Parts: sequence; structure tokens; C-alpha cells
Amino acid sequence: MDLEFTSKIVKKNDKKIVMLVMDGLGGHPIKEDGLTELETAKTPNLDKLAEKSICGLQVPVGNGITPGSGPGHLGLFGYNPIKYQVGRGVLAAMGIGFDLKAEDVAARGNFCTIDEEGKVLDRRAGRIPSEKNKELCKKLCENIDIPGVEVFIETVKEHRFLLVLRGEGLNGELIDTDPQVVGEKPLEPRFKNSAIGKTVDIVKEFLRQAKKILKNEKPANMVLLRGFSQKPNWPSFPEVFKLRSAAIAAYPMYRGLARLIGMDILQTGETVEEEFKTIEEKWNDYDFFFLHVKKTDSYGEDGNFDAKVSVIEKVDSLLPRLMNLNPDVVVVTGDHSTPSLLKSHSWHPVPVLIYSKQCRPDKVKRFGERECITGSIGPRLQAEDLMALAMANALKLEKFGA
Amino acid sequence: MDLEFTSKIVKKNDKKIVMLVMDGLGGHPIKEDGLTELETAKTPNLDKLAEKSICGLQVPVGNGITPGSGPGHLGLFGYNPIKYQVGRGVLAAMGIGFDLKAEDVAARGNFCTIDEEGKVLDRRAGRIPSEKNKELCKKLCENIDIPGVEVFIETVKEHRFLLVLRGEGLNGELIDTDPQVVGEKPLEPRFKNSAIGKTVDIVKEFLRQAKKILKNEKPANMVLLRGFSQKPNWPSFPEVFKLRSAAIAAYPMYRGLARLIGMDILQTGETVEEEFKTIEEKWNDYDFFFLHVKKTDSYGEDGNFDAKVSVIEKVDSLLPRLMNLNPDVVVVTGDHSTPSLLKSHSWHPVPVLIYSKQCRPDKVKRFGERECITGSIGPRLQAEDLMALAMANALKLEKFGA
Repeated sequence: MDLEFTSKIVKKNDKKIVMLVMDGLGGHPIKEDGLTELETAKTPNLDKLAEKSICGLQVPVGNGITPGSGPGHLGLFGYNPIKYQVGRGVLAAMGIGFDLKAEDVAARGNFCTIDEEGKVLDRRAGRIPSEKNKELCKKLCENIDIPGVEVFIETVKEHRFLLVLRGEGLNGELIDTDPQVVGEKPLEPRFKNSAIGKTVDIVKEFLRQAKKILKNEKPANMVLLRGFSQKPNWPSFPEVFKLRSAAIAAYPMYRGLARLIGMDILQTGETVEEEFKTIEEKWNDYDFFFLHVKKTDSYGEDGNFDAKVSVIEKVDSLLPRLMNLNPDVVVVTGDHSTPSLLKSHSWHPVPVLIYSKQCRPDKVKRFGERECITGSIGPRLQAEDLMALAMANALKLEKFGA
Repeated sequence: MDLEFTSKIVKKNDKKIVMLVMDGLGGHPIKEDGLTELETAKTPNLDKLAEKSICGLQVPVGNGITPGSGPGHLGLFGYNPIKYQVGRGVLAAMGIGFDLKAEDVAARGNFCTIDEEGKVLDRRAGRIPSEKNKELCKKLCENIDIPGVEVFIETVKEHRFLLVLRGEGLNGELIDTDPQVVGEKPLEPRFKNSAIGKTVDIVKEFLRQAKKILKNEKPANMVLLRGFSQKPNWPSFPEVFKLRSAAIAAYPMYRGLARLIGMDILQTGETVEEEFKTIEEKWNDYDFFFLHVKKTDSYGEDGNFDAKVSVIEKVDSLLPRLMNLNPDVVVVTGDHSTPSLLKSHSWHPVPVLIYSKQCRPDKVKRFGERECITGSIGPRLQAEDLMALAMANALKLEKFGA
């Protein structure tokens, strides 16, 4: 169901929904036993929950489409990821808590290394430490001067920073300057389409000054810019679903995404335990919790099958603490698959369960990719429909039509 | 498939399709055995049919959406329920066989009780008997006088009546006057949007006169109006599918819905037996029969699990009479779920089977919610597609493309 349709039939009640997202949850067999990471993991608590739930697999964007983290999560939150697209720059801003204004243009920057001819030697400048990054950002901030534009340069992590341009009449429809390969010069800023305006010249001037300021630095003597974008004007999640909504996520990116659609961001720690502690502490203050577990994806990207299994088992061991809070609806899923086999995000459907007292459980007794195929959710539900199902299970949707 | 697409490839033949709708068929476990109403019911005949059919579950409107009776049935008939929306007033008119003209404005009325200040004490006037309702409608008809407008006031049942305004340039886009809660005054008539015209003033005048005429009545001393609407201009079911189409339904609402899309309405009795007798009698006269069983829903709404089971068993016991007619295609399903657990319509997918000699049966041998999940129809078919499948199974659709 689309967001606009669902929003018209939402009603408030005091029931609570938890969406537990294990990033990159879906996997692939890699060993002789033919089991995926999730199928390998010992998950007695998830299995017990699956037995009382409806199970299935969901497709975050579309069949065959490998989602990035943004689209993957937007689908889970009920936003059609093709209709609601957001640039990397905006995401980066959200992720570090930068208060982006409506007309700001944001871009993700990389410190990089160029040679004397200006060709890129290392797109990440040897992944300089974040401390060095802060020092360089400070230097840029103090020296960049472009008339009529306020320029913000903020450290993200390692070689990554955020650039924000603030001024009147800016347009974020620019191509990336990152050539994506070494041995070539950064691309000249230009608009993606036929847009006109001063933003291209502003970015050119920024790059000219940055090159000058950084020229004696090693190894980070230049910057590359990607994902120019402006803050989208989207429906607010808490307003659409009439849910006091909180995000618990250790990583900036996911906090940024949640902030973008209007969720409150709760202070939490780096570990899954700390995230579960946060939900316990804030239980009475919200109707919806987005609880994000990052490491399933990180280990998948590393190709570390066993470590991904361990993270799933860790989450399973913490699940009783969540269930002790007596949530009315629990959704457990991922924002996409990240099979260790592929060391990357993938297009494979993602296991999902939805628990409530009135979910009409199916016959699935084990939370795993192949068991879920035979569940009531089906093998390829559009992720976009999950919020409607969660809301229905929380008895928060009015009947449609007489 | 949408109606417009399907309609272009329809061909006529002499095959007959029966759509047997058990209203609110889908259920939910309530007892320790974990079985739904349908799973509990002894249904040897439906099971035998399921074995020769394709099985699955269908979603009447969308995932998570709880359908009203109107949208639930429109989906079954191939009309996208979000695209084809109809007001309560029009449905009420259809339900009592009122011959609504194109420009008429219809509303559903409730007799209600108000106090001396005009605040609503009882929105249903103690559910007055239908006889009393008829008396009051007669009194209103005889005394209401609004220049330039013909006013029809017809008893529906108990406290419910139908109001139809006939005249030139009327507009049905009015809000309900029913405040939905007691202790408040009825709402003043006004347009929903920026529409202009005389209809608001006509309704105000109607209410002014009705209040005066009813002022000494007890307990029904006022009326509330809901669901102002006008007859929609939709494609006709018999024309789209080239089917001589008949509806057999004991309840007015479902006859009204069928009439709205152009089906013939067959005289029948109050019981399921009488409905089956009607189909036997009229077998030669039609190519498509919509046979509606109401009580599965009624008992679901009452929370009476066992009685709902009994109705399903009753239908099962009558099924051989239908099969003896040798129908070419049989569809058995519901317009939505009505689990006794929830005592209301719900969002849960609805079991469905489609039988024909060329349906390519799956492995499902039992007609029940969980068995159907693994059937060829899948766990979440859009109801809108059922008519295309029924038509295909009746060999009534041409090949698409060369």
C-alpha cells in the first residue's frame, strides 16, 4: 500500500510496534552444508517467535534490484524507494546530525591524493585517520571564502567529509566530481540536466580554493565530491502513521535516515546490548522503535560468514529482553541481503517475520530464508507493504470503505 | 489484470462460472488447537473440490487493509477497489432496489434521539423496529416540502433509512451530519471540498423540516445523514466480461452492489438452501452466478466461532448440488476475513480456490487458510485478478498479442 493511501486510514491507539532491522540479514550458502548465515545460526528465540508470527521474504526495491542502505530502509518504513530518492550528500548530513535547511546543497566529500598533473592516485587518500580529517576540515573552513555563500565542511569519518553550501537559489542537480577510477583527473562540475544557475560556478570555486589550501598536504592534497543533493520535502513518518517514533542506531547513516523522515534519534552505545538497553529505558516514551543492528552487514561485506552468524546469534540471545517489554507488534527483517559469498549487498529477498496476537500464524517454525518461503507473507512481498501490515496488526488502521 | 485490459480480450462462449462468496470467510485461531473457523469445519466437499482446483489466498484491497463489504466485493468482480469507490448512500439505494437516476444524491439516514438542546443521546434511537421506521418515513414523506426538489425517504431496516434528493444540478460531495459520538449536536451540512451549489441549502432545509415533523416522536425525534453520494458511471460487469450475470444474495447490501455493476438480481429466500435452489432454477439463464452467503460474516462479527464453523459446514453440505449442475468454473472465496477473534472485518488474506477442468491443480488437498498458502494461487493474490483467472479457466479470454 502506498504511503498516501495508508495515511488516510491510520488511527491512534496505545499499541507499540518494534522494527528490528539486522542490516544485510539475508545471506547465501557458502559451505557444504548448504546453509545460509541465518540458517546456520542457532536462533532458538527467533524460531520461537517465528512460530507465533507470519513469515516470508520481502523485496526492498524490486525483483533483482540490489538496494543501497537508503532505499533498503525507506522501503521498510513504507516509503516507495523509487518514488522517494535521496542523495548521498543529504544522507551524510543527516548521519552526523547536521541541521540541513531546505535550500542547502549537500555533498559527500572524500579527501584524496592527486599527482602533479592533477590525476587521482588514491580516491581515499590512504583512508587518513579521522583526526587528520578534522584538522583538514578546520583548515578548509578557515580559508575558503566564496562571496554570497556560506560553506560548511564537517568531518564524517576517515577520508569522508560533508560539504554544505548555503545561499539563495542553489540547485543540487550536479554530477559527481569523483572519476571513480585512479589515473584520471577529477571531473569538472556541471549540472546533470539542463538546469542553469550559479551552483556549478560556486562548486568550481570551492574546488579551486580547496586545491590551493591542500596543495602541501600529504597524502590528502585534494577532494572529490559525490551525491550533490538537497533535503527532500517528504511526508513525516510520525505524522503519517501517528506514531511517536524513535530510532536506535549505533551508526550515523541510519540515524540520518531516520531523522530525515522525522523520527527521534535516541542516544545509544556502540554495541547491540547497549541498543537493547536503550529500548528498555525509553519504552514508555514511544509507540514505534526502529532498532538497527549494523554488524550483520559489515561482516557480510567482509565475507566473514562465521562472524555474521555470531552477530545473528547475539541478537537472538537479546531477543527475550525485547519480548519481556511485551511489544504488540514485532517486525524482524533486514534492509537487504548481504551474503558473505558476494561480500556486498545483493538482490536476494530478505527474511521477515511479523508477530502480533492477531497475526494468524502460518506453519513456519524456523526463521531462515528457505523456511520463510512457505510462510503467509509469501516469498516476495514488497517491503513497502510491511508498515501497513505492522499497522494492521497493531489494530491501527481503519476499515476501508463501507 | 485491470478491467480495461481484460475487457479487450474477452470472448463469448457457453461456459458457466460460479462465484461462491462466503462473506468474511477468512478467520483466526481462537482455541488451543490453533485452528481457524475454516480449518475447524468439516468440509469434505470443499476439500474434494480443492484437490481438483488451484488454491491460495487473496488480498481484497491491499496488504494490511481491512476492506468494507463494498471494496471487498468489487475486488472479487475485477474492479480495483481503490479506483472504484462508492458511497454508502448509493449502496443503501442499491440494497433496497431503489432505482437511482444519474444525478440523484443519496444518503444513508439514521433515526436518532436528541435532547432538548439538540445534542445526540442515541445515534440509533434504540434501534427502533422496522415497522416504526416505516411509519416515520411515511410521515416525513407526506410532510416534507422543498421547492424544486423531489425527496424520497425509504425504510432500510431498524433505525436506517435512505434519503434520495432528485433535481437538477445536485452535488453529492457533502460531509456526514452524524457526529459519530453522543453528547454532541449533529454537524451542519457543508461541502467536503470547494464545491458550490444549492445542495447544502436543500439538505439544511430537509433537516429543519424533519426536526419539526419528528419533534414529538419517541425515541426517534431526529435524523442523522451519512455517505452522501451519486451513482458512479462505471463499466458494466455483463458488458466487460460478456457474461449474462446474476446475483443471488439474501441481504440487500450485496444485491445493491451487484445491481450497481449491472448484474441481474434473482429473487431468492433467506436461507443458504434457498439460494442454492435459486441457482438450480435459473441455471440455464445465465453464464455467471454470484452466490453470496452472509452468515459466515455475521457470526464472525458476533465473535461466535462455532456458529461460523456451522455455516461453513452447511455450505459444504450443499456444494454437491452446485457441482451437480456441472459448472465449468467455480470460484470459492470470501470478500474479506472476519475472524471471530476480532469480531470485525480484518486485513488477513482470504482463502480462495478456482476449479475448472483445465486449472492445473496444485498439491493442496484441504481448503483452509494455512493449506492454501502453498497453493498455485499463492499466499497474497490481488483479488482484482480473480475474474481474469476465472475467465481464463472458462476459456473466455483471447490470446494477447500475436
